[in-house]
Amino acid sequence: MIMLITLTTDFGLQDSFVGIMKGVIAGINPQVRVIDVTHGIPVQNVMAGALALQHSIAYFPRGTIHVAVVDPGVGSARRPILIECDGNYLIGPDNGVLSLAIGALKPDHIVELSNPIYQLRPASATFHGRDIFAPAAAHLSLGVAPAAFGPKSATFLNLARPKVRRREKTLEGEIVYIDAFGNLFTNIEEHDLTGPAADRAEIAVGSVCVPGLSLSYGAAAVGDFVAVINSWGLLEIAVYRGNAQKNTGAKIGDKVTVIFGA
Amino acid sequence: MIMLITLTTDFGLQDSFVGIMKGVIAGINPQVRVIDVTHGIPVQNVMAGALALQHSIAYFPRGTIHVAVVDPGVGSARRPILIECDGNYLIGPDNGVLSLAIGALKPDHIVELSNPIYQLRPASATFHGRDIFAPAAAHLSLGVAPAAFGPKSATFLNLARPKVRRREKTLEGEIVYIDAFGNLFTNIEEHDLTGPAADRAEIAVGSVCVPGLSLSYGAAAVGDFVAVINSWGLLEIAVYRGNAQKNTGAKIGDKVTVIFGA
Amino acid sequence: MIMLITLTTDFGLQDSFVGIMKGVIAGINPQVRVIDVTHGIPVQNVMAGALALQHSIAYFPRGTIHVAVVDPGVGSARRPILIECDGNYLIGPDNGVLSLAIGALKPDHIVELSNPIYQLRPASATFHGRDIFAPAAAHLSLGVAPAAFGPKSATFLNLARPKVRRREKTLEGEIVYIDAFGNLFTNIEEHDLTGPAADRAEIAVGSVCVPGLSLSYGAAAVGDFVAVINSWGLLEIAVYRGNAQKNTGAKIGDKVTVIFGA
Repeated sequence: MIMLITLTTDFGLQDSFVGIMKGVIAGINPQVRVIDVTHGIPVQNVMAGALALQHSIAYFPRGTIHVAVVDPGVGSARRPILIECDGNYLIGPDNGVLSLAIGALKPDHIVELSNPIYQLRPASATFHGRDIFAPAAAHLSLGVAPAAFGPKSATFLNLARPKVRRREKTLEGEIVYIDAFGNLFTNIEEHDLTGPAADRAEIAVGSVCVPGLSLSYGAAAVGDFVAVINSWGLLEIAVYRGNAQKNTGAKIGDKVTVIFGA
Repeated sequence: MIMLITLTTDFGLQDSFVGIMKGVIAGINPQVRVIDVTHGIPVQNVMAGALALQHSIAYFPRGTIHVAVVDPGVGSARRPILIECDGNYLIGPDNGVLSLAIGALKPDHIVELSNPIYQLRPASATFHGRDIFAPAAAHLSLGVAPAAFGPKSATFLNLARPKVRRREKTLEGEIVYIDAFGNLFTNIEEHDLTGPAADRAEIAVGSVCVPGLSLSYGAAAVGDFVAVINSWGLLEIAVYRGNAQKNTGAKIGDKVTVIFGA
Repeated sequence: MIMLITLTTDFGLQDSFVGIMKGVIAGINPQVRVIDVTHGIPVQNVMAGALALQHSIAYFPRGTIHVAVVDPGVGSARRPILIECDGNYLIGPDNGVLSLAIGALKPDHIVELSNPIYQLRPASATFHGRDIFAPAAAHLSLGVAPAAFGPKSATFLNLARPKVRRREKTLEGEIVYIDAFGNLFTNIEEHDLTGPAADRAEIAVGSVCVPGLSLSYGAAAVGDFVAVINSWGLLEIAVYRGNAQKNTGAKIGDKVTVIFGA
């Protein structure tokens, strides 16, 4: 029996939607624990949901059921799916929100969640979190086999994460996430920045140029920009004891350039 | 022994009020689970709290204790009450916040929470959630009988939900709730819209006219208005992948008209 | 074995940081319960975090592990510490955020959290909540002795809470916290206001003068200012069914004067 389900959604906490999903789970499996990864994904931003799930999953015990619902197409043709991969279970709409957490791994099972026995009936067309995804997670936690939830599927929708462009003396990436502190997360990963040249790299975002990579925020003076490898393993531009988003006006998708040996 | 308590409040999650209530519960019954329905009820909006509770309760296992605290009159003459109804327990101020969840059902017990043995002492005049409602829920979950909490009461305060007006060719309702996605929830229920004429109904809110009822958001083009029966069983006006509240400027109380056979 | 961990942070709930901390805890001790005190501490406001923790801790069972992370200096020289005091355990950065909860009590143990065995490795320089504080709490809950986490320390950083100035006919305090309802919490405590003169005291904040102390919000007319001893035991200025912060424009640090026998 699985003891842990996580929830990642864009539902926010203003309404009762998340509470209702937990009620459905508790009604099916009163023993299973539920942990909120976050319900603060920007509304209908599938990429942000996929990134949050990707960078959280390693911190949960293997064997956890991860439910992610960022689902602008709820009630349309997109399929509800369950993916077993690397000893974990991922449940959500097949719109890419689960895909970054899988990355280059090969799933053991991909199943379409179509068996009405494991759904609330009648399933609404507006709240599959309550009617399809929460019940699936709860029944799975009780030991129902993945194959019981519906037909096998050969594929799932892969989200194209923006690529880093490597040129002779520069790396070009972009901002992919901005946290509540205003820190700017890029798609440039730690391994992109190895080698001796990286020590003398400058990082440019908009009209701001940050001199080199630091080991911690406190390497900068209070109020100054600082670039670090952050807790997601990504190049991040921050302001020490400040808010880089407010100071730059930067937004998701803005270009970030690393200039080596500058 | 009851295993589940839910909380519905307007306390928000900025402060420690909700955490303190959970601490009080854990101190009295370390085993009972607590699920947040929501703490995002608009401040002191008793009707919104009553609606959120009403539409959540069916998704929790029978035998759950539901605590709802939207309590602008805390410390005044309004009574703290416990209502047993349909196998569930409702705890909160007697200001109507519990009443929509009861609806036409007949309560088995109505008790005023006046026994100081089951309160934190001295009970403050500003935080009955901590001093009266949380302890009552925790003691009830341990098996204390409802009658032990105070004298029986014959009545509770019923909130008048705005009525739908049915005319020959129209239904007139109003917006009763707006969720974090900007979806406009009306007081018009699914059964109000049955019959062949409903298929050709138009729904008007402000200067916007939505042509007919759809089965899901995706029936509309991206950015277009769409009317659906939502997950609370209510007529809802939404914008597919958009925000109907922002697009219309609508607010709670605004009139919504269904024109049949238009 | 300890059964309860609380979390108090300024991480907010928009991102996955809090969820990740809970995943780390669940991976180390799947049995321990985690209660959020709040994650809504104003960003990097150590004093607000210290006040929230101070006024929450009495409502949790003794023997609880309280983790508080408001940590603008993460990755800098400030030490991560564990303090055992009065039968409870406090874990966080040694920047004062734990200190008001200790007050005049004498800690039994103060330990620097430096043993890498009880940290995620490599520990990041940007997220000690995940890499140091959550693992320490989880291992402590499993029965690891405080002394195992690192060397003993003789001291911890004490935050200077703003003092109340007592003059012949007045008390001068200040606003130390503003809650989500807009209620103004001062540093003036109930015992500061005892004696017969207190019954005829006036309370001044900015250009507003509140006539005397009331027993509950409802003692004022709707929309009027009211002063009460609030649920934290502090003098509070509120507006009955309104928002004192919005009505006054007051902010943390603003002076509040009590004029006796006015």
